[in-house]
Amino acid sequence: MSTAAPRIETDSFGEIEVPSDHYWGAQTQRSLQNFKIGTETMPKPLVRALGVQKKASAMANMELGILDAKIGTAIVQAAEEVIDGTLADNFPLVVWQTGSGTQTNMNANEVISNRAIEILGGVMGSKKPVHPNDHVNMGQSSNDTFPTVMHIAAVEEVHHELLPALEKLHSALDIKAREFENIVKIGRTHLQDATPMTLGQEFSGYAKQIELGIARVHTAAPRLMQLAQGGTAVGTGINCKVGFADKFAEHVATITGLEFVSAENKFEALAAHDAMVELSGILNVLAVSLMKIANDVRLLGSGPRCGIGEISLPENEPGSSIMPGKVNPTQSEAMTMVCAQIMGNHVTVTVAGSNGHFELNVFKPVIIYNVLQSIRLLADACNSFTDNCVVGIEANTDRINKLLHESLMLVTALNPHIGYDNAAKIAKKAHKEGTTLMQAGIDLGLLTEDQFRQWIKPEDMVHPRD
Amino acid sequence: MSTAAPRIETDSFGEIEVPSDHYWGAQTQRSLQNFKIGTETMPKPLVRALGVQKKASAMANMELGILDAKIGTAIVQAAEEVIDGTLADNFPLVVWQTGSGTQTNMNANEVISNRAIEILGGVMGSKKPVHPNDHVNMGQSSNDTFPTVMHIAAVEEVHHELLPALEKLHSALDIKAREFENIVKIGRTHLQDATPMTLGQEFSGYAKQIELGIARVHTAAPRLMQLAQGGTAVGTGINCKVGFADKFAEHVATITGLEFVSAENKFEALAAHDAMVELSGILNVLAVSLMKIANDVRLLGSGPRCGIGEISLPENEPGSSIMPGKVNPTQSEAMTMVCAQIMGNHVTVTVAGSNGHFELNVFKPVIIYNVLQSIRLLADACNSFTDNCVVGIEANTDRINKLLHESLMLVTALNPHIGYDNAAKIAKKAHKEGTTLMQAGIDLGLLTEDQFRQWIKPEDMVHPRD
Amino acid sequence: MSTAAPRIETDSFGEIEVPSDHYWGAQTQRSLQNFKIGTETMPKPLVRALGVQKKASAMANMELGILDAKIGTAIVQAAEEVIDGTLADNFPLVVWQTGSGTQTNMNANEVISNRAIEILGGVMGSKKPVHPNDHVNMGQSSNDTFPTVMHIAAVEEVHHELLPALEKLHSALDIKAREFENIVKIGRTHLQDATPMTLGQEFSGYAKQIELGIARVHTAAPRLMQLAQGGTAVGTGINCKVGFADKFAEHVATITGLEFVSAENKFEALAAHDAMVELSGILNVLAVSLMKIANDVRLLGSGPRCGIGEISLPENEPGSSIMPGKVNPTQSEAMTMVCAQIMGNHVTVTVAGSNGHFELNVFKPVIIYNVLQSIRLLADACNSFTDNCVVGIEANTDRINKLLHESLMLVTALNPHIGYDNAAKIAKKAHKEGTTLMQAGIDLGLLTEDQFRQWIKPEDMVHPRD
Amino acid sequence: MSTAAPRIETDSFGEIEVPSDHYWGAQTQRSLQNFKIGTETMPKPLVRALGVQKKASAMANMELGILDAKIGTAIVQAAEEVIDGTLADNFPLVVWQTGSGTQTNMNANEVISNRAIEILGGVMGSKKPVHPNDHVNMGQSSNDTFPTVMHIAAVEEVHHELLPALEKLHSALDIKAREFENIVKIGRTHLQDATPMTLGQEFSGYAKQIELGIARVHTAAPRLMQLAQGGTAVGTGINCKVGFADKFAEHVATITGLEFVSAENKFEALAAHDAMVELSGILNVLAVSLMKIANDVRLLGSGPRCGIGEISLPENEPGSSIMPGKVNPTQSEAMTMVCAQIMGNHVTVTVAGSNGHFELNVFKPVIIYNVLQSIRLLADACNSFTDNCVVGIEANTDRINKLLHESLMLVTALNPHIGYDNAAKIAKKAHKEGTTLMQAGIDLGLLTEDQFRQWIKPEDMVHPRD
Repeated sequence: MSTAAPRIETDSFGEIEVPSDHYWGAQTQRSLQNFKIGTETMPKPLVRALGVQKKASAMANMELGILDAKIGTAIVQAAEEVIDGTLADNFPLVVWQTGSGTQTNMNANEVISNRAIEILGGVMGSKKPVHPNDHVNMGQSSNDTFPTVMHIAAVEEVHHELLPALEKLHSALDIKAREFENIVKIGRTHLQDATPMTLGQEFSGYAKQIELGIARVHTAAPRLMQLAQGGTAVGTGINCKVGFADKFAEHVATITGLEFVSAENKFEALAAHDAMVELSGILNVLAVSLMKIANDVRLLGSGPRCGIGEISLPENEPGSSIMPGKVNPTQSEAMTMVCAQIMGNHVTVTVAGSNGHFELNVFKPVIIYNVLQSIRLLADACNSFTDNCVVGIEANTDRINKLLHESLMLVTALNPHIGYDNAAKIAKKAHKEGTTLMQAGIDLGLLTEDQFRQWIKPEDMVHPRD
Repeated sequence: MSTAAPRIETDSFGEIEVPSDHYWGAQTQRSLQNFKIGTETMPKPLVRALGVQKKASAMANMELGILDAKIGTAIVQAAEEVIDGTLADNFPLVVWQTGSGTQTNMNANEVISNRAIEILGGVMGSKKPVHPNDHVNMGQSSNDTFPTVMHIAAVEEVHHELLPALEKLHSALDIKAREFENIVKIGRTHLQDATPMTLGQEFSGYAKQIELGIARVHTAAPRLMQLAQGGTAVGTGINCKVGFADKFAEHVATITGLEFVSAENKFEALAAHDAMVELSGILNVLAVSLMKIANDVRLLGSGPRCGIGEISLPENEPGSSIMPGKVNPTQSEAMTMVCAQIMGNHVTVTVAGSNGHFELNVFKPVIIYNVLQSIRLLADACNSFTDNCVVGIEANTDRINKLLHESLMLVTALNPHIGYDNAAKIAKKAHKEGTTLMQAGIDLGLLTEDQFRQWIKPEDMVHPRD
Repeated sequence: MSTAAPRIETDSFGEIEVPSDHYWGAQTQRSLQNFKIGTETMPKPLVRALGVQKKASAMANMELGILDAKIGTAIVQAAEEVIDGTLADNFPLVVWQTGSGTQTNMNANEVISNRAIEILGGVMGSKKPVHPNDHVNMGQSSNDTFPTVMHIAAVEEVHHELLPALEKLHSALDIKAREFENIVKIGRTHLQDATPMTLGQEFSGYAKQIELGIARVHTAAPRLMQLAQGGTAVGTGINCKVGFADKFAEHVATITGLEFVSAENKFEALAAHDAMVELSGILNVLAVSLMKIANDVRLLGSGPRCGIGEISLPENEPGSSIMPGKVNPTQSEAMTMVCAQIMGNHVTVTVAGSNGHFELNVFKPVIIYNVLQSIRLLADACNSFTDNCVVGIEANTDRINKLLHESLMLVTALNPHIGYDNAAKIAKKAHKEGTTLMQAGIDLGLLTEDQFRQWIKPEDMVHPRD
Repeated sequence: MSTAAPRIETDSFGEIEVPSDHYWGAQTQRSLQNFKIGTETMPKPLVRALGVQKKASAMANMELGILDAKIGTAIVQAAEEVIDGTLADNFPLVVWQTGSGTQTNMNANEVISNRAIEILGGVMGSKKPVHPNDHVNMGQSSNDTFPTVMHIAAVEEVHHELLPALEKLHSALDIKAREFENIVKIGRTHLQDATPMTLGQEFSGYAKQIELGIARVHTAAPRLMQLAQGGTAVGTGINCKVGFADKFAEHVATITGLEFVSAENKFEALAAHDAMVELSGILNVLAVSLMKIANDVRLLGSGPRCGIGEISLPENEPGSSIMPGKVNPTQSEAMTMVCAQIMGNHVTVTVAGSNGHFELNVFKPVIIYNVLQSIRLLADACNSFTDNCVVGIEANTDRINKLLHESLMLVTALNPHIGYDNAAKIAKKAHKEGTTLMQAGIDLGLLTEDQFRQWIKPEDMVHPRD
């Protein structure tokens, strides 16, 4: 990775060479060597959250009078460089490491202590005057730090990425619902022709799904806003100062602008990640909703000549390497692939969440990796689907009208007049003979042409009867 | 099934023989013949909910002046017999039928119409004076009815079975947390010895998991309490009377004592079952929590002589057909099997929920079957686990004390005094040489016996430092 | 459950009352009282397999000279009554019990010993002359018995139910593939119009999926045919006689007519259920295949007037309680619900299979419950889908022809003649202007009418070019 | 991404600027702009497989006489640069694009055509003399190409990465099984003390699980080795030359050294990915096996003083940022996290596999992304677990001996001598009174000291009795 002469760093296992052009220390290096598994490094929002966590810790410890101000200030400065991404390439570790995320917490401790040492004019690797454990990790354990940054990262991503993307999609669907509110079309149940509705009503259902999905995201807040920090090694708070947990949470709230609080019970907060499983479950509902919507959109737009063809989707790119002129519902395809991924990620999070032992769940990295991937993919896919598909959907009114008037299920409007059984006779006769409902009804002597025209008006069939 | 001479019933497909000692009609009979799949019949709470739904519909239609009072009153009486279980053996259909649950809705319509006909002195199968479609199903479609009864059944089961069982388990765990609050023991992270805590603190984490789980169940209420009724065939409300939806919901609320309301958007309510996926996701979190708790309980109670052995579980039955005297943590085993089932059921519900098309999701029966099974199993397993395990858990204080004082992780208390690196030297030396921390510390010249005794007090290590 | 005066039975926990009109003993009764969870009792094929297992054990032990012939013969007779179902109502236990299935093994031991005592004229409950542990369970443990019956039950169900149902479905699809081999129709990719194919080719893909699915089922045999019996308590074979394992497997093979063998490694066979997870994975592939096929069938049959409508499905029953004359693809719906169930069951089996500890996986009942449910549902659903749908599928050739000739993707045949880019111009022009490909091609000066008629022949587009 | 002046490329949608320092063309560029979703780019093994596929296609088409030798040779050369990774940074597209992978197929077509044009001295973007569709993609469609490269990539990774890693782990476990074959220890079922076994027997179970897992991987070969190429757009083979499919498969076999063949049914091969779901299911079984093994290893190694402690794991790095000297079973943690990921990926693949429509499954990218990630993670994790954990496991014989002789379950050996009921009395008395089995047996008058010493020999309890 580096051609510079290595630097010697130490930990309780002894000395080890690390690349001198990076800030990390011995434990990061050992992890690199011991966990050559996959290519999935710790997600950026998590690294950023570690910056937030180390800054807030240093500030709280300074206020509590146990961290020297000079050291603390340097730590804060270095932590801010983690927050803003300046030190991004100093976090090389993969997800598949120790299940507590200790190595990534130590990665942050090492990078920040070395950077703070540098700021203060010391020698990197000397641990003086800033020690990774005694100062940067003061009053902290990986066991409370990592759950804390999991919550910070997830909430930030939900707040800054997911919710805006969902709101945008909801708005686009809602606009379409209103745009299409007077277009009467055939409804379909069981994929079979059913009674009429408006295209706007159809889109209002999609909009409602997203609206409720947004509401669901908010329901998890009371548990997601709770931070484990202050529990230290096993939840008791050993070695952290009384008052640290609350001060820490306040600082995180200030730094992020999000109302984090200290967790009500630190034992639960270390040993379980039920709040992450809950959030993942909510993302799973969104995936279910979006799978339905994206499927409907491509089915309604299927064709152009041999499908349903009631709507046209934006044509964004050539669809085939062999079939000239083919255009495909690719945004629906990307969206539904994302949905499948999120459903699987949810199972990963579920399995991981269920396998904690005693005071610690040691599936933390895989849980947050999946939750953050799900959030990111959902947010991106919603933006892409909105911009490149939904806003450009157009109604093919000629096609819609043609299908509407061919449908046999207009017969349903006859129920209150001639009863279900007689109406069924008309529909079955028309179906069998390939004729119209009116003709069948007259032939059966069940109604007159006038009655038919009075009773069967598709535009009156899209709401309850007076 | 029956030896009595059959009765002839009819539907739009014609005549069909049905057993004369049951109330069902032609469509129920056709379903029996066309869907010989599995043995899983429609769950009892769902059948009960159909009784509620038919009763509330008849009352609303009578109030709206479109249902004759004599007919309506007979329907109400028959529906009450469905509610109270009197007609239970008239609902023979399996889950694996039409995906809208139409055949089960028609089963209810047929049974209630025939029973109402009987009440009114008519001839069963004549559809007079009470027609299954025109009267019992008046202003309704299976497409709004079945989602409605799914919500009613799920909410009733959550309210009457699940929540009480969770509260009971929470209370039992909370009592244990207080009973054990002064028993200091070794904590464990990564399954390895860690810093001390109290056994009460450990149980407080379990109690908190359940407390939060109960809170999660409540979050779904705003969406679960919404009823699809009034949407009829495709969500438009065709053929139902203006005002029916709200009146119906009020009657359901009165009958059940639960605050149901009419759904905000009927298109969403028919075409999607996101609220069921959401509820299933919440049950999935409970399964995750309970898997952790039940696993911990059996690990803490492992032995009796060659395991952890810090607690004793009630001995309820012989554990082995070959090993005399063996006793096993069987309540944990039943609980964890239930948890595995719920995690799988959740995937079923997710897949089913994602596969709706246009105006209707046609995986309704499999969704409600799984949701109701999950609720029932969770409720029963929580009751069994509480009664047959949690309340009888006892602390083995001798064993707990012995392990506590052997642990090397008491060394953590030295960090603030001699720093992490020196403390690590002591721990590693003691581990390597099989000696005590005090001895290792003195040998390394890092502390005196007096200092050790002053700094290392397990009972002071279970909270933050002043 | 019973009004008869109870009988006193005993186990190492002491005396307990059991209903005198049943054969079970103390441990079955304790399980009934301690595990009031759900309604899912042990599946019938598993109870039958316990009969097979007890019979084979007694025969092997008699041959090995350690079981008295008179006692052994009575055990064999009683076991045969378990096999043939005579004693079916003596197995009341639920799935949610001890995770080793010990209570169900003891249920079998108790029922068979009491029935054997009865045969020999003894007093039920006396354990004389036939003791449930010492004689019926001789040389056995629940820990090897239960995995053994899991394999026997699963293999029997696969062999007698699943494979015949799959073969039948495969045959029906294959017949349709040949019946439709000359019907040229539009192909569809991305739900969009694509190049032509025959309807027979389309069905050949479905048939192939099932053919390969059958092949997959057979791949698991080398591991499924291995029986754990002879491992006893932890896999070592303690207390069973040398030679028992092989003799036992031979007897099972004889009784069932299926080539079971003794497991290569008994430790693996008790501690893991990887073979069950493997089988469940194969069932999961079948569910994936069948979901695709059933979805395609209902999409191809959608309409009758406003959908794809290329095929007609058998009309088996009325489809709607509100829409007269509506008919729905209900067999596809039942099938896809079954598929969703199997996918979820697979996750349950996966989670359960992964959670074994040391010498025993204690999720045995939930694993076999799900595997047997999946097998049963798949088998039944395949039979129902074949009989009530596939065999009656008809091609709507008029509709098929009309769509075929409207399709723009016939343009693909021009690639070798005028290149992809020119062909694309024709397709895009025809699409934009709503005209024919020929007209667009002529207008663009890219081909003549003669060339078009020569190059574009749908019936020549369903195979590679010479 | 690039500071160079852009190049103009064209497709049927018109002109578009692309970075001039890369080879890709218009369709790749459109995909970059239309699918800003996530960061997961197409996996390297898949890009390599595209090189193999394009090379084999060009060679087959040259042999069939339809591809000019000069153009074909240049295509082969460019394709080889894709195979060897030289052109790696020309494949920027993400997984979340069109579900057929068309954009990535076109990415390959564009890069290879431009590179071939460059080789032949032409102007990039001119499509002359090498056209991306007409030459590089000759006789191909994305719809057969992408499934083909999915199989090539998966099989190569299984063959070159997964199987060697599994063999290595199996060998390491097998060596441990033999190393530990004489160490008698307590067995554990239900986490409770059970009868004795050897530590070697325990490890033999793990080795067997992996051995069977390897066998399972091989079972999928008959279906994985089948290549879809030659099906082109919908499976019919339109526009490809008769004989192409077989020649192509032969070339792929030669290039890869793996025995690929042409798929038996091309319709199945495009429309379904059952073979991928099958492979994923087999990886899922491996995840289940490895979860069990890794869990057992960390439980057996738990402590060092307050756990089971029967084995010692290699100490690779400091385990805690707060607890000095703590060492954790981190390789087990990485492994179990990988297993959770694979279980979730399997659900993603299952959902994706089940959602195909008509002639094409359009979840191809997400399927192969998950399958390749699962293979890679399993392979890497097995290597890491073997090298950094298994090979260094040591038995703590003192601890093992101590626990063995304390166990009450040695009593099982008394069954054949005094019967299960009497043996149970001894075990229960010893347990209750905290005494030895021998003392309890003598006190109960059920045996003498001599008999006890003769009957209870742990070393004789690890195999069947003679």
